[in-house]
Amino acid sequence: MRDKGYDTMNEKKVIKGNFLYTKDKDSFEIHENSFLVLDKKHIVGLFQHLPKEYQKAPLTDYHDAIIIPSFIDLHIHAPQYLQRGIGLDLQLVDWLEQYTFHSEMKFCNQTYAREVYEAFAQDLYDNGSLRSCVFGTIHNKSNQILVETMKSHHLASYIGKVNMNQNGPQDLLQTTEDSYQETVDFIEQNEDSLVQPIITPRFAPSCSQSLLKKLGTLSQEKHVPVQTHLAENREEVAWVKDLFPQYKNYSDVYFQNHLYGCEKTIMAHAIYLNDDEVHMAVNKNLYLAHCPNANLNLSSGIMSVTKYLDESIQVGLGSDVGAGHSMSMAHCITSAIQCSKMRQLIYPKERVLTESEAFYMATKLNGSFFGQTGSFEEGYLFDALVITDPMYSLQTFTPHEKLERFLYCGGKENIIARYLEGTRI
Amino acid sequence: MRDKGYDTMNEKKVIKGNFLYTKDKDSFEIHENSFLVLDKKHIVGLFQHLPKEYQKAPLTDYHDAIIIPSFIDLHIHAPQYLQRGIGLDLQLVDWLEQYTFHSEMKFCNQTYAREVYEAFAQDLYDNGSLRSCVFGTIHNKSNQILVETMKSHHLASYIGKVNMNQNGPQDLLQTTEDSYQETVDFIEQNEDSLVQPIITPRFAPSCSQSLLKKLGTLSQEKHVPVQTHLAENREEVAWVKDLFPQYKNYSDVYFQNHLYGCEKTIMAHAIYLNDDEVHMAVNKNLYLAHCPNANLNLSSGIMSVTKYLDESIQVGLGSDVGAGHSMSMAHCITSAIQCSKMRQLIYPKERVLTESEAFYMATKLNGSFFGQTGSFEEGYLFDALVITDPMYSLQTFTPHEKLERFLYCGGKENIIARYLEGTRI
Repeated sequence: MRDKGYDTMNEKKVIKGNFLYTKDKDSFEIHENSFLVLDKKHIVGLFQHLPKEYQKAPLTDYHDAIIIPSFIDLHIHAPQYLQRGIGLDLQLVDWLEQYTFHSEMKFCNQTYAREVYEAFAQDLYDNGSLRSCVFGTIHNKSNQILVETMKSHHLASYIGKVNMNQNGPQDLLQTTEDSYQETVDFIEQNEDSLVQPIITPRFAPSCSQSLLKKLGTLSQEKHVPVQTHLAENREEVAWVKDLFPQYKNYSDVYFQNHLYGCEKTIMAHAIYLNDDEVHMAVNKNLYLAHCPNANLNLSSGIMSVTKYLDESIQVGLGSDVGAGHSMSMAHCITSAIQCSKMRQLIYPKERVLTESEAFYMATKLNGSFFGQTGSFEEGYLFDALVITDPMYSLQTFTPHEKLERFLYCGGKENIIARYLEGTRI
Repeated sequence: MRDKGYDTMNEKKVIKGNFLYTKDKDSFEIHENSFLVLDKKHIVGLFQHLPKEYQKAPLTDYHDAIIIPSFIDLHIHAPQYLQRGIGLDLQLVDWLEQYTFHSEMKFCNQTYAREVYEAFAQDLYDNGSLRSCVFGTIHNKSNQILVETMKSHHLASYIGKVNMNQNGPQDLLQTTEDSYQETVDFIEQNEDSLVQPIITPRFAPSCSQSLLKKLGTLSQEKHVPVQTHLAENREEVAWVKDLFPQYKNYSDVYFQNHLYGCEKTIMAHAIYLNDDEVHMAVNKNLYLAHCPNANLNLSSGIMSVTKYLDESIQVGLGSDVGAGHSMSMAHCITSAIQCSKMRQLIYPKERVLTESEAFYMATKLNGSFFGQTGSFEEGYLFDALVITDPMYSLQTFTPHEKLERFLYCGGKENIIARYLEGTRI
């Protein structure tokens, strides 16, 4: 019995602290002064009193800190890291043409790419976004540098080689064949578990019909997920209607080309969907990425996020750096709440996004794109942030108040430990 | 000649760097690689080439950093410092009753007050808000601790003893006579130049007619400025109408009691003003404090800031901590811009607040409440922040782009020097 106990203990680790997570979107699970037992990567359980069989396992006590699932960023552009905050007097199409395309062209230079991606990955790490779905550029050598940089920072991610063969500056356009073939190459080069490839047509206007079709077929053949943009801005929606008159609506352009929910798919923004499109979006493979900061900065609009959630659409959260200026998913959570409050002032029938919903979006819902992570339920991967704050010495806060303080007023300096798949990174 | 030059030089200091400020709201003045000459507290001039007579003066070179006027926060509650982020699912009146009044009651304890105010002042300093207009509590001993703490951090400020004699919890109410007399005492105790008293009725619902009248008379007799709240929330506006039926509107409650623009006056929020009230607000002694983060957090509404500016109303910016969660006026600037973009989506005829306007509000306009500060024009007090960023090594940014980076993505860690009235603090 003792030997067996010893063997069991030897495999396990225990973490003590105040755990907060969302099993579903409607409330927080709060386990104060509790014990989380870990079996290598996975959570065995969360206990108010540590069961006897784990009492000899090594224990890390985080005292009055709170422990939450680490953040997942469902939509971010690595090459736009340095342009955050710049040119935000423009709206989407002009902003792309006057700033963003110029930023992205610089990634033909691999020395530059290495420096910028190093700073980008460090900032994701610092802010506790330990998983993310990332747009690269068209340049595969630089995309590969991004892959290696994310790995060296122990950051799980999906990374996309961007596809563009029309409606962009010459330096960012490829032939259909090159764009396709380099996507195949990028996928084959990166069949790894920590950093995985994702098919990434920039958005419908950047891709010809034939490129979209080839990418959709590739996604189905190789079972590779998809990320792109959808209905971010009114002018863009009208443009897509002009460019693709044979389709029923913007969503249908992706759908008919097997880029919409055949494999796991992220559609960023999705502010301007008609009723048919809202209906289509109820699909277990489909994720909408709400990006409130970017939508405010480019005057795009505000997603009707609670309406979508109440329709059982999977809505996650993204920073959308660089149109979004903040790398912090905590900031993204509070911005999403603020935006929904503003929508309610305009549309009194719409309800406000609650704190637990916004937190759920950034953790368990975003996490489900990666598998079982983003929650502290049994069997989940233990991806976590440990958070503390010098103000705890001035006043007693409940664990929930500590979480609110972090989301609204905290920063990377408050994150004192990061765990990915059970390992402190 | 040489001796005279030497004498002149001895009085002067020179600061070199990239200066940005707003002389008026419509554009930035940008002086790249320039020399600012300082005569103790005041600015002598900004020069592209350093005039001969100052070439022997001691020079501090800030190289590629940018130098901007330090921030002024026109509306902030010191005792709410620790409650930021908490309870923001509520709206104004419930939030006051369930959270804020409880926070403020604790300031009957001076040990607690000393600890919290120390952290508060340090955070203002860190974030570069070197001047501010601050609400204390009803408790004069703690208010005096706040005064001393601000002085010890070299922070210029107006500080108000809060007046409440109705519609609050018993522990925060005073008799009319006590509330008045303690205001007189607080004013007489603090006739200092760095930290000055300001008459601070919490808002109309907290004060009886007779208390408002006595405070208005006191302000006129002693020439002491006034700060309070106005028309933040629809429910509050209706309540004031019920409480003060004899007045034309909310503004008129203050106006008839000489608390509205007789002396310099700050009215925080002012979201729901009728046309008469907008007309009244055009008054050289009157400042509206726009507090976008607080207004979003408490679902209050969005001020029509560009409409007010175009009517020549003096609209400044406030963090409104604790309903506002961020101590950073940079965050307040970007939030004001985001809010105006959102209003434009709803009201297409309203124009968007420009970056230079929002910056002007937080510097020169807010500064005018204190005198000549918040700009780098000749004769102004030199109050400034020096700002740098590790990203400058990765890419060339213009001074204006550096400012945008700081406003959107920067933080206190980017402020490498702070000057108040010509002295580095």
